[in-house]
Amino acid sequence: MIADVYIELKEGVVDPEGEATKKALRLLGFNVRNVSTRKVFRIELDAKSREEAEKKIAEMCERLLANPVIQRYSIRWVD
Amino acid sequence: MIADVYIELKEGVVDPEGEATKKALRLLGFNVRNVSTRKVFRIELDAKSREEAEKKIAEMCERLLANPVIQRYSIRWVD
Repeated sequence: MIADVYIELKEGVVDPEGEATKKALRLLGFNVRNVSTRKVFRIELDAKSREEAEKKIAEMCERLLANPVIQRYSIRWVD
Repeated sequence: MIADVYIELKEGVVDPEGEATKKALRLLGFNVRNVSTRKVFRIELDAKSREEAEKKIAEMCERLLANPVIQRYSIRWVD
């Protein structure tokens, strides 16, 4: 199974990379309203079911991929 | 308009962050086959049409967001 795991900042948490990108794009003359950033981990794993895979991915996010204080994750299945 | 701009490495380009994440997940006991990473810029911009917006985004990618030698980009519309 292949899952795209999206890691994004929770509402209200400042996104310095997005802010810097917005400023840089504006300096280049692009009239952007807002820019925010996300990270995607494409994970290929074996599991008997999507439910089992989702449980594993939730554990991966809690233990390594995301900082639960400021980030949240969501899963999109690729296959 | 809101676009998610996906920046990913071209085929054959090594993804050190993905490799490191795979190793770390395996060390934690997760049996993952492969991990690769992508970056998403969510860009809110004004444009008269999707075509115009796509042209602007292509220029943003070429000038700032992506390194065309090793990365490629794709656009998904959020709204």
